Amino acid sequence: MNFKVNRIILLNSLSKVSKAVSYKTPLPALTGIKFDLYPTFLQLTASEQNIAIQVKIEADNNLEIIDTGSVVLSAKYILEIIRKLDSDIVEFEIIDGFLTRISGGNSEFNLNGTDPMDYPQIDLIPKGMPFIMDSIELKELINDTRFAASEKENRPILTGINLIAKDNELVAIGTNSYRLSKKSVKIDSDITFDITIPAKSLDDISKIIENQDNVNIYVSERSVIFIFENNIILTRLIDGSFPDVSSLIPTQFAHELTIDSSLISNSISRVSLLTNEQNNVIKLDMNNDRVILSSFMQEIGSVEDTITECFYKGEPLSITFDNKYISDAIKVLDKGKIKLCFPGEMRPFILKMAEDDSLIELILPVRTHSY
Amino acid sequence: MNFKVNRIILLNSLSKVSKAVSYKTPLPALTGIKFDLYPTFLQLTASEQNIAIQVKIEADNNLEIIDTGSVVLSAKYILEIIRKLDSDIVEFEIIDGFLTRISGGNSEFNLNGTDPMDYPQIDLIPKGMPFIMDSIELKELINDTRFAASEKENRPILTGINLIAKDNELVAIGTNSYRLSKKSVKIDSDITFDITIPAKSLDDISKIIENQDNVNIYVSERSVIFIFENNIILTRLIDGSFPDVSSLIPTQFAHELTIDSSLISNSISRVSLLTNEQNNVIKLDMNNDRVILSSFMQEIGSVEDTITECFYKGEPLSITFDNKYISDAIKVLDKGKIKLCFPGEMRPFILKMAEDDSLIELILPVRTHSY
Repeated sequence: MNFKVNRIILLNSLSKVSKAVSYKTPLPALTGIKFDLYPTFLQLTASEQNIAIQVKIEADNNLEIIDTGSVVLSAKYILEIIRKLDSDIVEFEIIDGFLTRISGGNSEFNLNGTDPMDYPQIDLIPKGMPFIMDSIELKELINDTRFAASEKENRPILTGINLIAKDNELVAIGTNSYRLSKKSVKIDSDITFDITIPAKSLDDISKIIENQDNVNIYVSERSVIFIFENNIILTRLIDGSFPDVSSLIPTQFAHELTIDSSLISNSISRVSLLTNEQNNVIKLDMNNDRVILSSFMQEIGSVEDTITECFYKGEPLSITFDNKYISDAIKVLDKGKIKLCFPGEMRPFILKMAEDDSLIELILPVRTHSY
Repeated sequence: MNFKVNRIILLNSLSKVSKAVSYKTPLPALTGIKFDLYPTFLQLTASEQNIAIQVKIEADNNLEIIDTGSVVLSAKYILEIIRKLDSDIVEFEIIDGFLTRISGGNSEFNLNGTDPMDYPQIDLIPKGMPFIMDSIELKELINDTRFAASEKENRPILTGINLIAKDNELVAIGTNSYRLSKKSVKIDSDITFDITIPAKSLDDISKIIENQDNVNIYVSERSVIFIFENNIILTRLIDGSFPDVSSLIPTQFAHELTIDSSLISNSISRVSLLTNEQNNVIKLDMNNDRVILSSFMQEIGSVEDTITECFYKGEPLSITFDNKYISDAIKVLDKGKIKLCFPGEMRPFILKMAEDDSLIELILPVRTHSY
């Protein structure tokens, strides 16, 4: 294997595949990135339990192929070496076994590679017909739902994002069973599926999406393949069926608060000063005259934040909830007017944009002692 | 106690005193900041084992004093509250015992304060005559030596910076006994002292210095007081005598390398890629033709970085040393040409600016197996 490549292009490609590198794997080969140099392109592959990422660099002005071949190089070292080399072009050459010389400028690294035959075979060849999504729309879909997934492994299905396609619509749902985020987008395909993808895999995909482009998505029984630009990403699905949470989302509301998102968000951040991990509850008191956010910490003190610039409809209502859940929800809604809609005391409530129902945030209230 | 104050000015003052707040103290009062409101100024005090910091805000357009008094407020909460309040002016008022109302904009915090009588008495009144230093020169003196002090408590004296004044010169030395940094500055005073100040206290002083100003320094037997702008800082001294390390600094050199600091610094950062905490040694090979920096990690690989743009005088020399010590040393030297001066193999060597001896960096080589 011997090639010369533009350093910045290689660095960018290595950064992408490195997201699939597992540093805590029993299989040492997986701590590396596999370099496969074909007659017309260089292919970089990394993979772990849930995801495999492959990036291609085509032979052109930026890649000169001298001699084909393959090697696996430590992801940790190769990425830093390419980052720090002081030259526009770097050269790779296998000089002995899998010992690989990487040179650029006045620097020369000899890195012990490993045998590509020890690297697991990964089938990245898509089957069937893809459905196509806009990459930026996919990135938004991920970012709007991913944060709401569970961090805990006790119900593995909730660590994923549920994606349901039917009737030319794709609905994504993330939930930890105390809060939920649901995003709907129109799709140009009559495909039907109901799958759950690990949230972590979707994070990686979202980070790799840089430009507007079409993403070809191939859904099969146990995995999904995403193909866009020079990237191929395979992610496994989470087994089991996602709970039917859509029916939990209320549609009738006795109380509605319309407010500017940054106004309530700043107010929440102030009253959150008197919360901590054990005591993370804030209270919202609403009537036609004014809205008060408050919190209270034994020993420390209390805070009240009054909001007058808002519109409230309904009987007076007091409701308490997790301060992090509400600020996460507001963060993913667009700037501008938002609506908080409450069916009643101690009932799950929703947040959404005033004029758009495509993104729904659901939060369960917390029962507290009155104070 | 009742006053109104400009929020930004209070925030800036609280940030300064908060550096002396100890969150791990057996004395709960010390986790707070003491507010003393006198008829003409507000005084904020914080202190821990090694240092006490006091900042004054004078009554003027930015401070309206309504009713004098004192209270101790939790540093952690008060700083964040003042940071997040949405108003230019904030009001403090003791409303019951030590319960303090802090209000601004539409927000109102009630914070449980504690009794100022429980706060330790600290004598911040300077005795004798000060010597005067320029604040920016003091900040540089600290930053040029502080990093070289020891992190380990086994020889407490080495966790401090030794300051020796005599013959109108102030010499500061930090060392962990493997490397040393020595900075000399002229002073307009014939004062004589030999003291060791905790490096951590000097860090705090350096961070509090914002503007060029005169610093009045009062050295006494067990402590030093620094007074500048509205700040009074007292730091205790470390007991014991600092080792006489100046005599270890070589003055005769058989080998000299003159090189651009950023050139060698970049080269070091590249060869340091193949080092880690256990194996942090890099090698410098010099002869009249070229200079090579290299390192080597069993299992991983090796690197050689060649530097041609430099000037070497002397017989060929190979020397190995800690990569972090040399990069720290280069960081504090000014940009531009620097000199590395070697008495010989396995002997301590120095780094300095090509045309200026006021800052000397000393490094002990490391004995290694040849490779």
